Amino acid sequence: MDPFVRLLLISILIQAASSHKIIRILPSYDKISNGEGQRFDDGLFCDSWRLSVETNNAGYWATIPSRCLGFVDAYMNGDRYASDSEVVAADEIDFARRLDLAGNGKDAWIFDVDETLVSNLPYYIGAGFGSEIFNETSFDEWVDLAKAPALPASLKLYKELQGLGFSLILLTGRAEFQRNVTEKNLLFAGYTNWERLLLRDASDIGKPARIYKSEKRAQLKRDGFQIHGNSGDQWSDLLGPPMATRSFKLPNPMYFIK
Amino acid sequence: MDPFVRLLLISILIQAASSHKIIRILPSYDKISNGEGQRFDDGLFCDSWRLSVETNNAGYWATIPSRCLGFVDAYMNGDRYASDSEVVAADEIDFARRLDLAGNGKDAWIFDVDETLVSNLPYYIGAGFGSEIFNETSFDEWVDLAKAPALPASLKLYKELQGLGFSLILLTGRAEFQRNVTEKNLLFAGYTNWERLLLRDASDIGKPARIYKSEKRAQLKRDGFQIHGNSGDQWSDLLGPPMATRSFKLPNPMYFIK
Repeated sequence: MDPFVRLLLISILIQAASSHKIIRILPSYDKISNGEGQRFDDGLFCDSWRLSVETNNAGYWATIPSRCLGFVDAYMNGDRYASDSEVVAADEIDFARRLDLAGNGKDAWIFDVDETLVSNLPYYIGAGFGSEIFNETSFDEWVDLAKAPALPASLKLYKELQGLGFSLILLTGRAEFQRNVTEKNLLFAGYTNWERLLLRDASDIGKPARIYKSEKRAQLKRDGFQIHGNSGDQWSDLLGPPMATRSFKLPNPMYFIK
Repeated sequence: MDPFVRLLLISILIQAASSHKIIRILPSYDKISNGEGQRFDDGLFCDSWRLSVETNNAGYWATIPSRCLGFVDAYMNGDRYASDSEVVAADEIDFARRLDLAGNGKDAWIFDVDETLVSNLPYYIGAGFGSEIFNETSFDEWVDLAKAPALPASLKLYKELQGLGFSLILLTGRAEFQRNVTEKNLLFAGYTNWERLLLRDASDIGKPARIYKSEKRAQLKRDGFQIHGNSGDQWSDLLGPPMATRSFKLPNPMYFIK
């Protein structure tokens, strides 16, 4: 394609994307006020926006609201992200301990990888905490380093579920070409002895995560697994048939995956 | 039944209920700590507990954790509940405005009533903000007063959806014998011109809300309605087939309905 036409096309696409974003974020959220017509301050608004994201009320969003950059930074780097993660893990353990397992190696618990088992916070600190449009190239470079640390609450949960006899299935949106670095990173973070690590193969590229992950859960069922629990930071990790007996939404106010 | 035996039975039931509660709440949540083994303070823990409730991670719970009474009081009576409600309403309006409606009177939006259209906070202020076991008798007395105020964000949303041409279906867990006081209360709070007000009839009594409400949505579909949106403060208002195109979870950290 002619470089000028290409540049023009990109510029039009960026404009379309950003005007879409303006339509998406500004008109409704900007009118939000208390009963006396006063606008909620950033801290209050961003906390409510985060709840709306975590409950899946917000629907699709491309970047965090610009006024929430400081809020998301403080949330992720302070005690709140850790505390929220610990409470989800406690809910999960509580449920897992009450289950009657078949004990045949087919009692499955599914984990997503990014922002579920491992934290990409070191990358996102350098990428504006989700305030910048996702850059696949620089993210893949980060993935290649295989240095994402474990989420402490998830590592503890993972080991406890293994002790209870669950088969742990890792189901990630990462692609097959990232299998080696992903395994290397999981081991670096302290995860061992998973039953399967499922990544996108050629036929999965381009599928929405929700469809891709539902198809993989259906395959697991056909393979005889009973999917008791499912842990993910995205609703697209959890929703869609067949679902686990219980699904657990881990916090992630930095990005949204369809 | 002999009054003494009855009393004994009630006492055993209360003990069973409260020991169940201790099993349910304490063992996992009480171990929650940061990396250095320090217990999170009440404010941090209760905020994480609330997120866990709002995302449906917590599963069934009978009463709020006792250490969170002050937190829930401050949340409900301060700006946060209002702000969280406003942001959900903004998400809803944003979605509703983008829809192409059939315009045949069958474009439906479902609203739950309690803690969705009207607020029972005046009652719960006197009932420990969900820290006490639910008392149906005293709650029904409150319902009979028909004085629950509107949730401001919901009233605004309701009127805006009406303006857009939606048929508003009110689907409540209240029973048919409460129809008159419920209509009176809705009018008192400023709600008018709903398409249908659906309450539990004799055959619905005792059904979990999730089943009862799913059955009513199925009936609405058979009646030709397209259910675009569904607003409720309980996951049992929203989950179960058939679901609305988009479901919106309003905040409620005071009680849980199956």
